[in-house]
This record gives sequence, structure tokens and C-alpha cells, in this order.
Amino acid sequence: MAGNSIGQLFKISTFGESHGPALGCIIDGCPPGLEISLEDLQFDLDRRKPGTSRYTTQRREADEVQILSGIFEGKTTGSSIGLMIKNTDQRSQDYSNIKDTFRPGHADYTYHQKFGHRDYRGGGRSSARETAMRVAAGAIAKKYLKEQHGIVIRGYLSQLGPIKAEALQWDQVEQNPFFFPDPSKLEALDEYMRGLKKSGNSVGAKVTVVAEGVPVGLGEPVFDRLDADIAHSLMSINAVKGVEIGDGFGVVEQLGSEHRDEMTPEDGFLSNHAGGVLGGISSGQDIIAHIAMKPTSSITIPGKSIDKFGNAIEVVTKGRHDPCVGIRAVPIAEAQLAITLMDHLLRHRAQNLHVETQTPNM
Amino acid sequence: MAGNSIGQLFKISTFGESHGPALGCIIDGCPPGLEISLEDLQFDLDRRKPGTSRYTTQRREADEVQILSGIFEGKTTGSSIGLMIKNTDQRSQDYSNIKDTFRPGHADYTYHQKFGHRDYRGGGRSSARETAMRVAAGAIAKKYLKEQHGIVIRGYLSQLGPIKAEALQWDQVEQNPFFFPDPSKLEALDEYMRGLKKSGNSVGAKVTVVAEGVPVGLGEPVFDRLDADIAHSLMSINAVKGVEIGDGFGVVEQLGSEHRDEMTPEDGFLSNHAGGVLGGISSGQDIIAHIAMKPTSSITIPGKSIDKFGNAIEVVTKGRHDPCVGIRAVPIAEAQLAITLMDHLLRHRAQNLHVETQTPNM
Amino acid sequence: MAGNSIGQLFKISTFGESHGPALGCIIDGCPPGLEISLEDLQFDLDRRKPGTSRYTTQRREADEVQILSGIFEGKTTGSSIGLMIKNTDQRSQDYSNIKDTFRPGHADYTYHQKFGHRDYRGGGRSSARETAMRVAAGAIAKKYLKEQHGIVIRGYLSQLGPIKAEALQWDQVEQNPFFFPDPSKLEALDEYMRGLKKSGNSVGAKVTVVAEGVPVGLGEPVFDRLDADIAHSLMSINAVKGVEIGDGFGVVEQLGSEHRDEMTPEDGFLSNHAGGVLGGISSGQDIIAHIAMKPTSSITIPGKSIDKFGNAIEVVTKGRHDPCVGIRAVPIAEAQLAITLMDHLLRHRAQNLHVETQTPNM
Amino acid sequence: MAGNSIGQLFKISTFGESHGPALGCIIDGCPPGLEISLEDLQFDLDRRKPGTSRYTTQRREADEVQILSGIFEGKTTGSSIGLMIKNTDQRSQDYSNIKDTFRPGHADYTYHQKFGHRDYRGGGRSSARETAMRVAAGAIAKKYLKEQHGIVIRGYLSQLGPIKAEALQWDQVEQNPFFFPDPSKLEALDEYMRGLKKSGNSVGAKVTVVAEGVPVGLGEPVFDRLDADIAHSLMSINAVKGVEIGDGFGVVEQLGSEHRDEMTPEDGFLSNHAGGVLGGISSGQDIIAHIAMKPTSSITIPGKSIDKFGNAIEVVTKGRHDPCVGIRAVPIAEAQLAITLMDHLLRHRAQNLHVETQTPNM
Repeated sequence: MAGNSIGQLFKISTFGESHGPALGCIIDGCPPGLEISLEDLQFDLDRRKPGTSRYTTQRREADEVQILSGIFEGKTTGSSIGLMIKNTDQRSQDYSNIKDTFRPGHADYTYHQKFGHRDYRGGGRSSARETAMRVAAGAIAKKYLKEQHGIVIRGYLSQLGPIKAEALQWDQVEQNPFFFPDPSKLEALDEYMRGLKKSGNSVGAKVTVVAEGVPVGLGEPVFDRLDADIAHSLMSINAVKGVEIGDGFGVVEQLGSEHRDEMTPEDGFLSNHAGGVLGGISSGQDIIAHIAMKPTSSITIPGKSIDKFGNAIEVVTKGRHDPCVGIRAVPIAEAQLAITLMDHLLRHRAQNLHVETQTPNM
Repeated sequence: MAGNSIGQLFKISTFGESHGPALGCIIDGCPPGLEISLEDLQFDLDRRKPGTSRYTTQRREADEVQILSGIFEGKTTGSSIGLMIKNTDQRSQDYSNIKDTFRPGHADYTYHQKFGHRDYRGGGRSSARETAMRVAAGAIAKKYLKEQHGIVIRGYLSQLGPIKAEALQWDQVEQNPFFFPDPSKLEALDEYMRGLKKSGNSVGAKVTVVAEGVPVGLGEPVFDRLDADIAHSLMSINAVKGVEIGDGFGVVEQLGSEHRDEMTPEDGFLSNHAGGVLGGISSGQDIIAHIAMKPTSSITIPGKSIDKFGNAIEVVTKGRHDPCVGIRAVPIAEAQLAITLMDHLLRHRAQNLHVETQTPNM
Repeated sequence: MAGNSIGQLFKISTFGESHGPALGCIIDGCPPGLEISLEDLQFDLDRRKPGTSRYTTQRREADEVQILSGIFEGKTTGSSIGLMIKNTDQRSQDYSNIKDTFRPGHADYTYHQKFGHRDYRGGGRSSARETAMRVAAGAIAKKYLKEQHGIVIRGYLSQLGPIKAEALQWDQVEQNPFFFPDPSKLEALDEYMRGLKKSGNSVGAKVTVVAEGVPVGLGEPVFDRLDADIAHSLMSINAVKGVEIGDGFGVVEQLGSEHRDEMTPEDGFLSNHAGGVLGGISSGQDIIAHIAMKPTSSITIPGKSIDKFGNAIEVVTKGRHDPCVGIRAVPIAEAQLAITLMDHLLRHRAQNLHVETQTPNM
Repeated sequence: MAGNSIGQLFKISTFGESHGPALGCIIDGCPPGLEISLEDLQFDLDRRKPGTSRYTTQRREADEVQILSGIFEGKTTGSSIGLMIKNTDQRSQDYSNIKDTFRPGHADYTYHQKFGHRDYRGGGRSSARETAMRVAAGAIAKKYLKEQHGIVIRGYLSQLGPIKAEALQWDQVEQNPFFFPDPSKLEALDEYMRGLKKSGNSVGAKVTVVAEGVPVGLGEPVFDRLDADIAHSLMSINAVKGVEIGDGFGVVEQLGSEHRDEMTPEDGFLSNHAGGVLGGISSGQDIIAHIAMKPTSSITIPGKSIDKFGNAIEVVTKGRHDPCVGIRAVPIAEAQLAITLMDHLLRHRAQNLHVETQTPNM
């Protein structure tokens, strides 16, 4: 319980259900003096919001965020920041048909068993709609990291079903509705998604996030390693089933002589198999993480399940759903990485102020 | 900072360096009345301890644990449990040659940059020697989970370098020094390890842990999902670069119709692609997690690096090291999974006492 | 930082400034299945709200709370509960005269020095207006404690300036605007308050809160003792300068033979000098705590101070203020006690489920 | 549960029972580079240790602390610091007579009811013997605060039973076994204690702790106010029943015009009724706190109680006990204040690095 918060010094707590009156969050621990405007938050919210392309859910939400506290005369005050987004497109529909149903692959069954009582409208609290608040909070972290430390956090869709990005062109990522960095595959993606939609099915995806400009030294031995906290942060996103840092599962077949990143005085690290983390502490190299997103279970192909009385049922999920939740997950993963780095930046600062230099002795 | 603890209600805090006088831990939050003997702890410590086969480091440590508090007349009292293991085989050697050296692929560089001062003897706090305390704490969690709830936690080496387990024979796992569940591959493993040793190199591995008998309902929306906390817990183990729940990265290419685990009243879940977690909450199925362990960087093949003055150096790591740290990681991964499940069991219990039934309505 | 939360398992996080758009809170960890209506919350909010008698500030706030999440079909779901109260009576006034001023006895100076930037309108985050959210959250805790465990939490004004309650008539407390339990003193109170108002001054007060029906066993050795957490909780209320449990500072001159509460099989405890806590754990007796509230510094008598440029200034605080903040503190103190007991109830439950009986062996 | 830790960034966790093999603690979050020797810890341990004068318990414990980790080449490394003190004077006695007994005024009854099983030897975990580890940890905090920030923490016995200190001569405090700052009362104290001992009784006391040189800005709105955290910290000491900051309960009868501390550009604050905290944040003035210590219940005067079977019994506590636990509480209270200030110093630093100046604009 009390699981609706993340972070220790830069702490995000959220509330809100898919079809309730509003979503909200409290950002506690943001340093004072940071300039924040609504536009700063809205930019990433718009990247995540539904209904922006034919490849995502057609639910229409403006996702307009309101700042209720913690920012005064355009700057953070050091007090807790309250944010709210009203839900506007909760279609007034009859939910009586799903109220007692456990949709396969969804959290309906586990929420029911855990709590004995659940908000069944659109998945309630288990809906990814909640991630809007993470994106808003992450936008504040991203701005602080960039302005104060030159840290830049970006992400992209590295694989959609069978289609892998084979080129990484950062300037292309925001130019297509897939956040895909390999423009040579856009046509294939479009075709694949059309077929998927026609079949009423969904597909998995892989998302990659990168933080550049991270100073050496973030991360706390031994349990709160930076990579362990990133793993927690990214795995807390709906539908994520795997997290990799650097070479990830690729290391299983590597030899020590291949994996270790050598250094020279001239060039620093000669490779980055580690993904920017050594011994749980950032090395100053780019932090690179990958996540695996499962295919959503909201599909129109009938599936076997039970209802809460134990009867066999067949479930067909109609309504407005993302055929690949990985696409809209790019800004969410960026936000989570930003929140975790921000938290560790503050944690590091608390303890190590008197360490004279953080820059390598090269 | 203050990163040496894990868990909220079943909280483990550890101390100790590779070559310091002792390792220790405090287990805070263990329910009272649990019978615990030294043997209960020693069993798993012996499974992890070095020097037990020719495939692991030849450092000799008895790893004999002492119970300093919290257990009275053979039973836990509800007070904090203090455990200690004295280091006995810190060879009195001259460390002057490595004191200023950043071994490639190790935490030497990042610890130095973060803290400005480090215990360089055998890696100090960054050494995996610290995991002995996790295993001791995990043994208590395992015992409680098994005795009170029938939950059984086991693990095995699922892959060592290129050699994959293709059969899962649980009864074989403890019969060989690799914790390998596929006896048909033991000869190949032996041969591979001999070659590795001869070449002075190391290799990565994949470890799988499974929890059976977990009740439905463990895990807290939305950030403290069970899978997110398992990811944190497993990624906090030295050398882990990736964590998967259930099908893990396999989901990227799956369709929704394949991935979702259907249910029937007669058989419950018909598959377990989810690895026992839905919406961040345990489903009652087996919890299955995999981790990727990198090859240790302690190899005798020379590697380029720098020293703390910024000079180019060449590093050859002699001494006693595991050519595949994945082997001894099996009991550590089991311990981490046990600690996290124990924590969530207590968290769940706190909130949901009045939920009448936790058993499925089937 | 990140200081806007209280509790571990029943966790309250708040946001909002005196003159911002809204106040809000998240209640994380409330068990599912509790029936909660707006009226449940509004009852205590109305007891705290300003402008209800001539003895308190004339600021007019409806303090109407909105439930934004976590309650579905009239019952808590186990998800985080979002609450909001809009500020409606922020008089549009010119604050330029106080913007650079440090009012003596207020947090203006310390907020400015800490954060370098502050919301000066009505004290911003340091205003006691924030306590409205604590009262709303406390109402939920009070309801749970009462319905599920028969625990009743009540409070009263035990002293206002020189006037002490010499009788404790619970049925009188809600019958007068002072929450005073001694009706023989009401006239004296009225007269005293009139004089105070005329002189433009303010006065201190003492508030007492009592929890009846608390089971034996709440509180965790050794730092999270129940009394230590109550002290934290009550001292976190604006203007509190002292906290006592049971006989409090009276113990300084007591002998051991007087203080210790003896027991007999027939009558249980024969006295309650301890205030219901022994060794940091509830004893089953009434929990009794007292707090000292300082006189507000918002008075019309001129006081010396400095402005943020270091100039000498004279400050006269006009506007709408409580001449004795202790009066409206009664529901706030009840709320804080309820929140802390609720938290410890859940913590106790997590660990001690298998303890067969919690009732005394009498 | 999990209540054996205090602090968020400078976190102390302890273990150990009165008559177990050892006491221990982990200090997690101490900044690296601080020089610490055994003597630094032993100095305060010796001030607290039993058997040093005829006014305290005659239990003989060397209280020699061992450093097991976290300090290398004489300096903290930033890793967790493990400390241990072996218990040496656990008289091998027969406890069968108290094993089922609930001594009046002790935690025997509440521990038994909470946990169902307890270490009855000398009070087990509820014994104040545990505070030795707090003193050791506090010594590290004191050293850091003094060396890095010029903050000095001192305490004294301000009242013993009916005898109040009427002078505050800091240089006298360490010159007498009472930590009493008023040498004119030493004879009276000696006489009072002799009488007390003869009668077999005990008495309460008041202890005052002061922190000088604290910068303005420590403390986090709104729940983690500095004074709220000090209240928690001090109330967590065994036998404490009340905490005051500054004028404490004296404020109840004060007027606003008396209480508020005025400021001038020349002299800063003109008084310190607030005790150094305004709005929960340190003001730069001395932090002053008082605690009320109850008389120990371990007296030779018979008292009524029950045993765990519910039988009426009469209890006489023989053995070696402090007739006034307040005396030895002085170093404990200093340690707790130091730990809390240290924690808030680190918390403040994390968030407010970019605030240009922390010094008053005077």
C-alpha cells in the first residue's frame, strides 16, 4: 500500500482513474527558483496524449494541465507542486456489461482479488491514463536537468513487433507519429499497423531512452544503485515486461574481454557496453536503457475468461485502444528516466558537496 | 545516499567491505514467533559461498553467520535482527599497486569520482562479497514464506555464455555445481569453463528465479508494482544488466492474441506469459523472473585504463575470481526475490485484512 | 525536502498555498471497502473552517471538498484518494507592502532565507490554511478507526491564556465555539477574548486530544514509538511549541512510586500517568496528548523587524486573523492523532497477524 | 514495524538487546571524507556509560565500540558504517522469576501483547541500553556538524525532581556527575539522591539541549518541520514524556506581543522565545529543546501488577538501576538532536544548492 509515490528527494505522488473526474499529482522536492510555465508541461503531455494519429487510441482528451500550487510568479517556490488534469472524454456509456468481467491479460482479476472492490470503468486506476501525470512531472525534471546540468533525455521506439530500427537518426524521431529513428522503415510500419488494425489485434514494442550529459557519480551503493532505481522506474510503467541497461541480455553471451569498457586518457571510455553505469553509479557516459512493452490485451479477437462469479465468459474488447502501446510510451519512459535521475542528482548532492571535483582526472 | 537498505516493511540494511573486519546486516520488520536457527541461514550461505567448486573463486571464507539480536529462545521476537559474518580470508597482501588504479569495467572509477576516497582492497563496498548478507536475510524470508504461506522460491542457471538449459529438471539443480537444470549439458559446461579458465577470460550468464504458491494480490499500484519492485531488487545485485518478468523481451514480437493469458473456470489460467503479475499485482500463478549477468571484468587479459592521476595504464587482474559470476548468483537472486515478496506480503496484509477472501472465485 | 507527506502506510501528502487557486491532498494507503461520503469529510472541515464565530478569523471560506479519485460507488477502492478544496475568499488586494517584509514571529524570514523566493500572499505555504487538508484526511482515518475498531478520537481546548478548564464535560465541548469542556468558564472566555480583540493582541492556548478504545500493541520499537510519532504529528501543526503524552512535564517532579501505573487482574490499570503508551507501544488505556499553541504573531500592535534588503521596519498586521489559533486547532489535532494511529494500526497489522490474541490476559 | 531506523539521508538503524551478545548500528548516509577515530565515538559513549558515579546504575560495561565498516584510512568512505558494542556484564542470573511477570510501568506488558513473545532479560529490546548506539552515531553527526559547519551541540540537566538549575554555567556541566549547570545546587542534588536511594525510589528530570551555530534554513514544510522532527527524535528516547521547543508550554499564557521575536538590522533577533525555529525552519538562532523524563519504574518499593497468566502479583525490582534516568540522558539527547540536525542539513543541501546565499540580508 501507499504505492502511489516514486522518488525520495524528488518525489512524485499521483491519483486518478481513467474515468473519474480528474487526474492529479504532487511533486515534492523540486528545488526553488526553476522557471516553469504551462507550456513546459504541455509539450510532453501533447506528445503522449491520445488521438493524435491514426495509430493510437481515438479517445479525445485535451490533457490540459492546471498548476494549483508550488509555482509563484513563474518560478518554483520549493513547496509542493500540485497539478491536475480533468478528464473530459469519459463517454457516458453503460458499463454494466464489463462490471463483473475479468478481461484476459488485464488487471481486472488481480485488482478484484486484491481489493474486493474496483472501479471498472476503463480499467480505473490500472489504466495507463494515469501516466499523463508522470509525463507532466517528468517535464519539470527534464527542464531542471537540462537547464542546471545540461543533461538531455530523449527516447525512441526501437522496435515495433518484427520491425526494428536499424538506424538512429535523432532528428527524425519527432518527425513521425511512431517516434521511430529509422525513416527507411516508416512505410513498413504504416503497413504493419494497418494490417494489425484490420485483424483487431495488437503487438509488442521496444522503447529506448537515453540520457546524455549525466555527470559521473549518481547512484547509491548498494541497493539504490542508479540502474536498480531506473529498472524500478521503467518497470512501473504499464505493460513493461523487461528492462535492460546498456547491452542488457546481450551480456549473457559476452566475454569479459569484450564487455568491459576500456579507457584511455585521451578518449575516456572507448565503448559503452555498460550503458553508462558501473557498480550502480553513473560513469559520465550516456545512460542507455531499453524496455519491452507487451501487446495490449484490449483487442477485438474473442478471448476466454471468467467473471467474478466464476462463470466462463468470452471477452471482446471494443472501444478506443492503442494497437501498440509502445508508441505513446516514449514520452512516458523519458519522464520516468528524468524523474529517477533528478532524484539521484539531489541525493548525490546532499552527501557529496565537499567532494572537490566530479570531473574525471583525465 | 542512505542506499544500503531495501524494503519498506521487511527492511534489510547491510554494511561491510570485501576486506574489512566483518559484514553485517539488520533485518527490521520480521514478524515475531518465527523459528530460526543458524542452520536455516547457513544452508543458503553455503550455497553461495566461495571456494566450493573449481568453477568459482578460490577465496576461502567459512561465511559463518552470527546472530546478535532479535532471536530469543529460537524464535524471532519482532525486534531488529542483527547478523554478522567475519571476514577471515583477507590475504595480507600489498595493495599499493591497485590503490590508484581504475580497473576497467569495475566500480573503481565511479566510486572514486563519487566519493573522492575509497576502500580499494578487493573492491571494498562494491565487491559482491556484500551479497552474503542478502543471502542470510533472504533465508529468513524464504523460511517465513514457506512455513506461513507455502510459497517456495527456487532458482537456476538458465544459460552460461552460449550454453542454454533446454530442460528444466528441478531435482537436478542442486546436484551440480552450476545450479543447472539440464543435466545433458553438464559436460559441455565443464569443458567450456575449462577453456575459459585457460584463456583467463570470463563470461556472462542468465539466471532464472521462480516463486510458486504466491497468493493473488501482492503488489501496490501504481509505482510499487510487484514487478517494478522485483526489477529493482534483482537489478541491485552486482553485475546484473537486465531483468525480465515472464516472457520479458519476448513480448516485443508477440501479438495480443498470443500474449494474454486466458482463463477458464476449470483450469484457471491457461498459460503464463505474464510471469505471474498482472497490472503490477500477483495473479496467483508462478512468478518467473530472469536476469542477465555480465561477465566479470576481473580477468587476466590485459586491458587499457587510467589511474587516478590520469595516466594511461594496462591492467591485468590477478587473484581469485569467479570466471562466471552467474553461478553463485543463483542463491542471491532467490534471496532478493524472497525479500521483495516478503515485503509485499506484509504490505498487502496491512491494508487488506478485511477483504474476505483472497482466493479466486472459481 | 519532500517534507509534504506524513505516514508510512496511511500516507497523507498535501499541496496548496493560502492564496493560490486550491488546496489538495492525496491519501495513499486507505484500506478498500470503507464507505465515505462528502458529508463525512465536511463535518470536520466545518468544525475547523474560518468565520464561524466572532472569536475566529472573519475570512469566509466554504471549504467545500471535492473527491477526485479513490472512492467509487461510495466506497474506497484501495487506490490513492485525491481531494481538493478551492480557495474562494482570496481578497484581491495589493500585497506590494508586505512582499519584501519579514513579519516578526512569522515564517517570512526563514522561508525567504531557505528558498530565496516565496509566495508572500497570506503566508503562502506557511499559512495554517493548509491544515484544512489534514482535517479532511483525518476524517477518513477517524471513520475507519471508529467503524472497524471502535476507536474514538476527540479533543478540546484545555486552556486559553490564563483560563484553564477545571472540568471535563465531553458533552459540552461541541456546544460552545471554544471547544471548551468546562461550561463554568465560558463567560470568562468570552470576556477575555473581547479584551484581547480590543487590545489588538493574541494569546496562546493548550489543546488536549484523547483516543479511546485503542488496542494494546500499536507502536514500533525503537524509533517509531507511538508517542514519538504522535509528537512528530502534533508538532507538525502550525504554532505548536510543545507536546506532552500523559502527565508530560508533570513527571519531572514525580517519584517512581507515584508515576508507574499499577495493574490488578480485576481492574486492569489503576491509573494512567503514562497517557496510554508504555515503551512506545499503546497499552490499551486512553491515549492522552497535550499541545502548546503559541499566540499568533498577526497582531495590530506594531513590532520591529527588517525587510529583505536589511532595512529596519515596523510591522502592523492588519487583516483577518484568529486572536487565538488554539481554538480552531482542536479538529486539526484530532486529525493528526487519527492519521498517526491509523498508520500504526496498519503497521501493526502487517507484522503481527499471527499473534493469536491482542487482548490482555486478564 | 521496521521502526528501528531514524533519519532519511543520515539514517541510523540499530539492533541489540540488554542481555544479548551485542548492540550494533548502521549509519547510512554519512558524507565521505570525514576523519573519525575510535576516540571520537568513545568520548560520548563514556559520558553515557553506566557505573561512572554513585548516582547511576552499577552495571559495569566498558561500552567499547568497534568500527566494522565504512571508515578506511581514518576517514569515512560514504559507505554504510557498521558499529558494534559487545555486552560484557550480563550477569548470569536466573530470570525465571521475571519471565512471566509484567513489571508495572515497564514495557513488559505491551511487548508481550504486541509480539506474543519477548526477550525478558533486563527488558530486552525495550532497555535503554540500546541508546548506546544512538550516542555512537550521534558522535559522528556532532563531529561533522562542528567541523564542517561550526555547529555545536550541548546539553545539561535542567531539573532533577524538585531541584531546578537557576544558573546556566556551561563550563560547569562536565565538571559534575549530574551534567548540572548550576554549581550552587550540587550539594542539594547529592543529598536528594542519597535520600532517594535510601527510600528505594526514583525521580523524574528535565533535560535541555542546545544547538549553536545552526544556519538559517533547515527544516522542510509542512510535515517534516525541523521542530516536528526534533520532537520525534527526542520523544523516541526511553522515558521521555514531553518535548518543548523554545518557550514550550510557557507560550500558553503568553500574548502575541510578548512571544514574537522582534528583529533589528543591528542586532538581528532581540529574543528567542521561538527556540530557533520559525514556521518549522531554523532561524539561525540557537535551537533550544527541553524534554521531560519520567522516573524509572525499577524501584524496590513493591508495586501491584499481573503476570502473563492474569494472576495478581507484587513486583519489587532489585538489581542495578538508575534512580534518575535523566542524568545519563544528557548525552543521548545531544546525540538525537545531532542526528536530526545532520539529517536536515543534508536534506536542505540537496534542494537548495543554487540559492545564492543563506546568510541574512542584514
